[in-house]
Amino acid sequence: MEYDGTAYNGWQAQNASRSGRVRQKRTIQSALEGALGKLFCRFISITGSGRTDAGVHALGQTAHFTVDSPLSVERIKTGINAFLPEDIVVVHARNVTSGFHSRFDALSKVYRYTILNRPDRPVLDRTSVYFCSFPLHVKRMQEEAQVLKGKHDFSAFRASGSSAKDSVRSIKRIEVRKKNDRITIDIEADGFLYAMARTIAGTLIDIGRGKLPAGSMKAILMARNRCAAGFTAPAHGLCLMRVFYRKIRGVRR
Amino acid sequence: MEYDGTAYNGWQAQNASRSGRVRQKRTIQSALEGALGKLFCRFISITGSGRTDAGVHALGQTAHFTVDSPLSVERIKTGINAFLPEDIVVVHARNVTSGFHSRFDALSKVYRYTILNRPDRPVLDRTSVYFCSFPLHVKRMQEEAQVLKGKHDFSAFRASGSSAKDSVRSIKRIEVRKKNDRITIDIEADGFLYAMARTIAGTLIDIGRGKLPAGSMKAILMARNRCAAGFTAPAHGLCLMRVFYRKIRGVRR
Repeated sequence: MEYDGTAYNGWQAQNASRSGRVRQKRTIQSALEGALGKLFCRFISITGSGRTDAGVHALGQTAHFTVDSPLSVERIKTGINAFLPEDIVVVHARNVTSGFHSRFDALSKVYRYTILNRPDRPVLDRTSVYFCSFPLHVKRMQEEAQVLKGKHDFSAFRASGSSAKDSVRSIKRIEVRKKNDRITIDIEADGFLYAMARTIAGTLIDIGRGKLPAGSMKAILMARNRCAAGFTAPAHGLCLMRVFYRKIRGVRR
Repeated sequence: MEYDGTAYNGWQAQNASRSGRVRQKRTIQSALEGALGKLFCRFISITGSGRTDAGVHALGQTAHFTVDSPLSVERIKTGINAFLPEDIVVVHARNVTSGFHSRFDALSKVYRYTILNRPDRPVLDRTSVYFCSFPLHVKRMQEEAQVLKGKHDFSAFRASGSSAKDSVRSIKRIEVRKKNDRITIDIEADGFLYAMARTIAGTLIDIGRGKLPAGSMKAILMARNRCAAGFTAPAHGLCLMRVFYRKIRGVRR
């Protein structure tokens, strides 16, 4: 799926009890379940590969659901898209074996953080890039990013509200690239702690603008303390690009 | 300047008298003049390189105005941006000699029309690409586009409401490119008739999907009749990319 996260409170509403007085924004999951409900005339729950935070976008989110239907998978896809709002679309659908689980079977995910690095704010893509007017030292960001590669305890990069018991994750690939005035940070990992991608992006931005000295990434990682890292970069610059699976043994359509 | 044309009735309100009962949307020009007014505490009129239609975007629109001010040009730029709404930004400003005119001195302009060519509608850039689910024959579009290169009477590609006396224009460059599922049509010309870029784009789309046969572009151009051409592609897929000038003899800042 692709979605523009701007109008949503993330994949699934979190902390609903804390902000009970405020009317919750819609969630991506509820929008999808709404479309499925209209298509099949009954409630069908959908399970995503993982939660994306409020405001985070996706170009490659995945999810699964179970339904008994005479419709072909291609028809189901078209039907869901017809009932979805304009900021969510399913671009690929397939049958899978009943044991398949979009979250537990995921091998890794790729997130991309996009920064517009110039003196003037963005206009056409203002809802999907983070604007940074301080000149960023890209080479330094590239070098420091490599420190994070591999299996580490990423406690320093998880939000304080994170509930995961285990904070060890493996970053398979992390790449900082610059093209014209846009800088992208691609991170592929077997899993992400709450706000981990955004805290890594924020720390790299702080390093790139010189707020954190060169060479500080190693110390931050070792500290295992959120206070050591840089700021949490805003959600709207982040996009879930892809979820990788083992070769899925699918049922033929 | 860059702007997201979605919320605007084009550069300058047109046909205001015809739709007098409907409340007019803002225009780009009035938003800029509003910002200049706040910055200099008096009305300052601004002249653009040309009008962009309602909903058309820009990444390289130009304009000029005259003001007596002790502020540096860089300060003026920052000041304007501070007063502009989030969907318009000035990315470059300079002093010019008093004889300079952003429209009359322009040598050529480049417009880009962007098409998303896949089965499923766009999401993240849905306000800046035109969605076409019919498979487009890009090579045919590339070949037919070349017919338009050079100096021609473009009557076939101008909207019926067009008021320009002379419909001869020179297309210096026209390029159709495909990258993944996005097709772009770049047109550089010394001038554009009303809706000309969008009618060329619509005609190329009609050719690409086979609604108009290969080889029809020459006949359409020769017909000098709007009815011969394809549809007028929607405004939101169009973007003014650049305005070229002779080397401007500027006043030093």
